[in-house]
Amino acid sequence: MEILEGKQCLLPALQARQRKFRLLLVKQGIHPKRIQEILAAAEEQAIPVKYVAAAEIDAMTQGRSHGGLAAICTPKPAYEIEKLIELCQKLKVPPLLLLIEGTEDAQNLGYTLRSAEAFGAQAVLLKKHVWNFEAVAVSRASSGAFERLPLVKIENAEKDLLPLQRWGIKFYGCIAGAKRMIYEVDLTGPALLAIGGERRGLSGKLRELCDGFVRIPMTAGASSLSLSHAATVVMAEVMRQRRQVPA
Amino acid sequence: MEILEGKQCLLPALQARQRKFRLLLVKQGIHPKRIQEILAAAEEQAIPVKYVAAAEIDAMTQGRSHGGLAAICTPKPAYEIEKLIELCQKLKVPPLLLLIEGTEDAQNLGYTLRSAEAFGAQAVLLKKHVWNFEAVAVSRASSGAFERLPLVKIENAEKDLLPLQRWGIKFYGCIAGAKRMIYEVDLTGPALLAIGGERRGLSGKLRELCDGFVRIPMTAGASSLSLSHAATVVMAEVMRQRRQVPA
Repeated sequence: MEILEGKQCLLPALQARQRKFRLLLVKQGIHPKRIQEILAAAEEQAIPVKYVAAAEIDAMTQGRSHGGLAAICTPKPAYEIEKLIELCQKLKVPPLLLLIEGTEDAQNLGYTLRSAEAFGAQAVLLKKHVWNFEAVAVSRASSGAFERLPLVKIENAEKDLLPLQRWGIKFYGCIAGAKRMIYEVDLTGPALLAIGGERRGLSGKLRELCDGFVRIPMTAGASSLSLSHAATVVMAEVMRQRRQVPA
Repeated sequence: MEILEGKQCLLPALQARQRKFRLLLVKQGIHPKRIQEILAAAEEQAIPVKYVAAAEIDAMTQGRSHGGLAAICTPKPAYEIEKLIELCQKLKVPPLLLLIEGTEDAQNLGYTLRSAEAFGAQAVLLKKHVWNFEAVAVSRASSGAFERLPLVKIENAEKDLLPLQRWGIKFYGCIAGAKRMIYEVDLTGPALLAIGGERRGLSGKLRELCDGFVRIPMTAGASSLSLSHAATVVMAEVMRQRRQVPA
């Protein structure tokens, strides 16, 4: 079980319906209008609501920004590769998947998910060790995308990713040393964008799986972009190409 | 005076030579190889070095990541509008300026500066209240761009910005409701990109100064990008257009 806190986390989690909620805790005396949507969602999903003293919520939450709301629920479930392939089959557009191999912190992971949703990625794949996130921090930065987006946990790169490749998804590794710029590669087909951690970059194992490599052109001498910003620029380019906007 | 801590902040600050350093504090017993570059820069700039007990550095710094290094120095100086115009005149490329009207936190401001440098912005303009940042947090996220990039403090939007406009810089407001996408607007000329805070968006005053507005196309229903991610996507597009890459 996990504890979620604050409206900003709770509302998208309730709306996404991916978690099972055991109990909703509401601070006594909270203005009902402020939590109208939360209570409506709880009623619809038959989640028990308990009104408690503020101190009780303080004691069970980490942040100071719960605003009188907390919930006990199952963690965000991992999405299975088999389900992801089914999802890809049903899409009317070429799938866009993002694979994150490493991340510096929960906030950046959250921002990456927010951008992934904004630029139409259907799912985000996270290496096993990235999966070990602080849900409240990720969720808040993601502006709810964390709750809505299917997230796949990659235990074994080859075993888990080959079925996607066999299905027809091209893997593009985003690396600083790539010959071709993102603007020179046709990213309009079914694509998985693989991005490594900021420190180590993309692993050898993942590079072996890649069909091609791309880089973001940058000013000489500048330090590299953060992972979430690099991912955002590449996904924005995919969307640009797919909209077939004349340049 | 300001206290900077850790190699990640100190080295770019020393290299950028925008601050005046009064004293460098080094933990006794630190391995000289780890701080070789720092000591060389301090010597070159005739900055006094004092070896102290770890507790002394702990007491004067905020983070726990100083790694045995701290310095007392002047704050990052604000860049004057007049100097910015001189800088623009000397450039061999059309200037690209970024104006940030609001920001959520120091880390995001740092990431924005890092992206601004990576995509070739010559300076970043910050509204007065944004200027009130926690230097160490901004610097760390910026990967040193905070120290290197000229930062202009905007006290009065009209008074400070009109000279830039008169000089020939076109102002583009980045707003969600703009008719034209960033891909439909020619951003290859001298340009200032104005981006509002995440909560309030671009102010009326700044909108009045804008020559045009642009938006980043996104998936319907997704929440907006964070400020630093929106700024990054727009600046990447400016660079794409300026490289005249065939789409």
